[in-house]
Order: sequence, then structure tokens, then C-alpha cells
Amino acid sequence: MKYFDKFRVKPGRKVKLGEVDPDFTDEHASREEVAKETKSLTRRLRELQERLYAEHERSLLICLQAIDAGGKDGTIRHVLGAMNPQGCKVISFKEPTRMELDHDFLWRIHQQVPGKGEVAVFNRSHYEDVLIATVRELVPKKVASAHYDQINTFEEMLTQNHTHVLKFFLHISKEEQLERFKSRLDDPTKQWKISESDYTERNRWNDYMRAFEKAMSKCSTDHAPWFIIPANKKWFRNLTVARIVVEYLDSLELKYPAPTVDLAKIRHEYYKAEAEPKPVNG
Amino acid sequence: MKYFDKFRVKPGRKVKLGEVDPDFTDEHASREEVAKETKSLTRRLRELQERLYAEHERSLLICLQAIDAGGKDGTIRHVLGAMNPQGCKVISFKEPTRMELDHDFLWRIHQQVPGKGEVAVFNRSHYEDVLIATVRELVPKKVASAHYDQINTFEEMLTQNHTHVLKFFLHISKEEQLERFKSRLDDPTKQWKISESDYTERNRWNDYMRAFEKAMSKCSTDHAPWFIIPANKKWFRNLTVARIVVEYLDSLELKYPAPTVDLAKIRHEYYKAEAEPKPVNG
Repeated sequence: MKYFDKFRVKPGRKVKLGEVDPDFTDEHASREEVAKETKSLTRRLRELQERLYAEHERSLLICLQAIDAGGKDGTIRHVLGAMNPQGCKVISFKEPTRMELDHDFLWRIHQQVPGKGEVAVFNRSHYEDVLIATVRELVPKKVASAHYDQINTFEEMLTQNHTHVLKFFLHISKEEQLERFKSRLDDPTKQWKISESDYTERNRWNDYMRAFEKAMSKCSTDHAPWFIIPANKKWFRNLTVARIVVEYLDSLELKYPAPTVDLAKIRHEYYKAEAEPKPVNG
Repeated sequence: MKYFDKFRVKPGRKVKLGEVDPDFTDEHASREEVAKETKSLTRRLRELQERLYAEHERSLLICLQAIDAGGKDGTIRHVLGAMNPQGCKVISFKEPTRMELDHDFLWRIHQQVPGKGEVAVFNRSHYEDVLIATVRELVPKKVASAHYDQINTFEEMLTQNHTHVLKFFLHISKEEQLERFKSRLDDPTKQWKISESDYTERNRWNDYMRAFEKAMSKCSTDHAPWFIIPANKKWFRNLTVARIVVEYLDSLELKYPAPTVDLAKIRHEYYKAEAEPKPVNG
């Protein structure tokens, strides 16, 4: 699993995002060069998802995290959205509701995990709660720290119960974020997305980066790995996420299940039926 | 709305499926002839869905019903699956669970209706409960009959609360069903789908047709129309469903919402930010 290993955060490694180049594109030079491969990977992704669905034994949870404008929506639109929505659900976690706040932070998450045969894509996730809490100092350090252990235990439980977990951090630079914000200003189909917090939160850029580093350092485990995806170039981000998910699903050796009925007997019934007179009012 | 009107069951009309040719393909001759149009319609469908999502004021509920092998999954795969799964969920209603059976038949349905900006596709729906109950005579006629009124009231309530409802019956012939069953026998990627009930339920074909006719006669309303789609030719079915949904969404005049912030002020902030020194550890 070439890209799986290359971009995975090895368990126990202390992540330093400053050491990861968000402009990295490996040996690839341009969008045009990888267009064909990306397309064939998304087609393969869909095939593998159909098998996962048919097999109905295991499930896949994909978590996407990034700073604002980091490309979560785009990754869904261009890569993960290639899956058949029958069997693939996207959950966008927003600010918790009052009822959600009255429960532990994993309560609303647990309700949305994928069932057998399903893929769930979390656009933001349980990590968001920990990130925000850390950056805004909403909870004492001790409480925040305990949350990482709770996440690891929770994810381990999921993986022990037929759910596979892959977590992606889309890594862009502060300059790239500004470029993306600016381009929204001139796009009437995107202006509605702009909020005051877009640029006020930029002042906390370094705090967010430290929080992401901490979360990935503490929670990239053997059972539920984190991947850091260089994401300044959208085409490389798409290629890389597609490759990693396809490599991983390929490794599961998903198979269509064997028929549960006696095919010969049913074949016989069908050919008998064909010999029947046609219905009058079909 | 050409196809919308053409295939809609007019409120009050008594449906006779024997009068609807499942082989009908209008003025179209072949899959090849319509391939380009179908593709451009699914692309348009996705654009319109993005607007519905952005607008965040209204929602769309699409119900698919058909006899086994009628093409519900295929319609999702080839038409409705073109939508971005972020904002479009597919709900497959299976046999009710014990907990669901302990509630009224609309209880589990209500939980899955789309929120503002969302599209929900029901693969089978609340109609399934009524159909099965009628065919198998699970409930007294009087109870079954009251269910149609309850459905109409429920759907009216939804449409009065920002949800638009479109209901499609995919109409195939009994011979076409047999062909499709037979082709599954030889396809290793489909053999797992075959069940004994596939051909035992064929004996109830006429009962099912009568039950569909009754449901559509009673529940095609101004607010929540039924459409009968000639579906022996998969390519015509795809074209027609895509056209109807696109025609309908077009009629809603969906618009991207206006920005909620002062763009000029934000533009100023961005250009100021650009003049700042670059962060050391980006």
C-alpha cells in the first residue's frame, strides 16, 4: 500500500505540520497528467464500494478534517461523492445542538457510524469538538486530554466491531487559505458561504495547527490511522485521497457473497414460468 | 413541464396499468440516441441540487416504488446518484424492525424526511407498507383504506412545511421481470441478490398491480404527484426520471442566497492580511 504508508502518521510519531510541505505533489507535475488516473481510481472506488455493500460484513468510516477552505467539500464532491449514495452517507457535523451538548461529545457521533456494508464520510467529526475546545480553551486541559484517550478507546471499539476507520487531514498553507477566501469573493455561487469568522479565525491559525498536531500525534493508531494530505494542489489532494482509500479497500479482499439459494432450482422455475401463457393484463 | 405533465397521474384519475405500455419510449429510438441528453440532465440535476443545498429553504423527497427488479437501484445508480452525497441521502426501507412495528407505519418514515437544503431518496417508502398489507391481507380492508388518507394528510403536511414530494412508479412487464431475474442467474456480481421470494412473489403479480393502481389512484395529489414511468427500457426510464426531476427543480427557481456579510469590508481585510509578514511555521 504505497500511498497508504507514505502519508500515514505512524503511531507514536510527534506530528510537526511545519515539516510537511502542503505544495508537495510527489512525482506528478500537473492536473492534466493525473486526470486519467484520478478518474480510474474513483471508478475503482465505486466498484469496491459496491462489493462492500454486497458483502454486508464490514463498514468504512472516513473522517475529513481541515482548516476552513482546506478542501473537505471538494474532496467529497470530486472523490468520495463518486460512490453510490445507496450505501454511502455524508454527515456534516455542525455546531452541536442543545440536546447534543447535554450529552458526552461522542454521543452524536456514535449515532452516525456506518452499519454493515455502509460507508460513512464525516465532514468534520468528533475531532472538531476536541480541536475547538483546545483552541478556545473551552474546557480545562485535563478534560481535553482525557478526550483523546476516549477517542482512541471509542475508535478501537468500532474497529473491533467490523468498522474500518481512515482519517484524513487536508493540509493547506495559510497563504493558500487566503487565496481561496479571496476567490470566493468574486464567485456568486460561493459568496453565500463567506462568514465573518473566516478571517477572524485566521488569527488563531497557529493555535489550530498546534491542536491538529496534538490530535494526530495522540490518535493515529494502528487501528485508526491519520493521514496528512498535502492539499494546496486540489488535484494532488484528490489523487492521494482516492489512492489511499482504494489501496485500503483493495487490501480487504472484498468479495461478492455466494448465492444463498439453489440457482439450478430457480433456473428451472424461471424456464417453467416462461412456458406459461402470458397474463391478460400485464 | 413537458415530461412532468406527460407522466403524472392526474389527481382523481383511476389508474389502470394495463393501459400504460411499459415499452413506451416516446419519440426516442435507442440508448445511444439519448445518452448525451441523459448525461447533460444528470449534470444539470447536480447543479440544481447544489442550489437547493445553498438556498437552505426547501427540501425534496423522491419516492421510488416498483415490483422486484423494476429498476429502483438502477435509477439511483444512474440518475439520482449523480447528486452530491453531501446533501442527498438514500434511505432503503426494509422489513420493519420490531421497534418500528410497535409504532404507526409513518413513524419510521417521518424520521427520515429531508431537512432544508436536502434531498432524500426513498428506495421503497411508506407505500410499501400499504402495498404489502393489501396484497397479503395483513390488515382489515377498513384499516388499509384509512392508511391512504393518512398518507395524503402526512404528505400534505410535509409540503406545507418546505418539503417537495415526487413519487415514481417504475413500470415493467411481467416478461421483462423474468428476463431480468434470468440474467441475474448468470452474473456473479448479482447472484447474491437472488432470493426464493423472487419467483414465489411473481404468483402475486396481479395482486401487486392492483395494489399499485389503488395507491396511485388514491394518493396522486396536487401537492404530491405520482408518475408512472415506462421502465422496460432502462435508458428511457433514466431519461424520463431525470427529465421530470430537472423540470420540477427548474420550476422552483432556486437561487444562491445573497452574501450575509459586507463583502467590501472582508475584501479589505484580506488585502490587509496579504501585506502581513508570512508566518514562520505555516
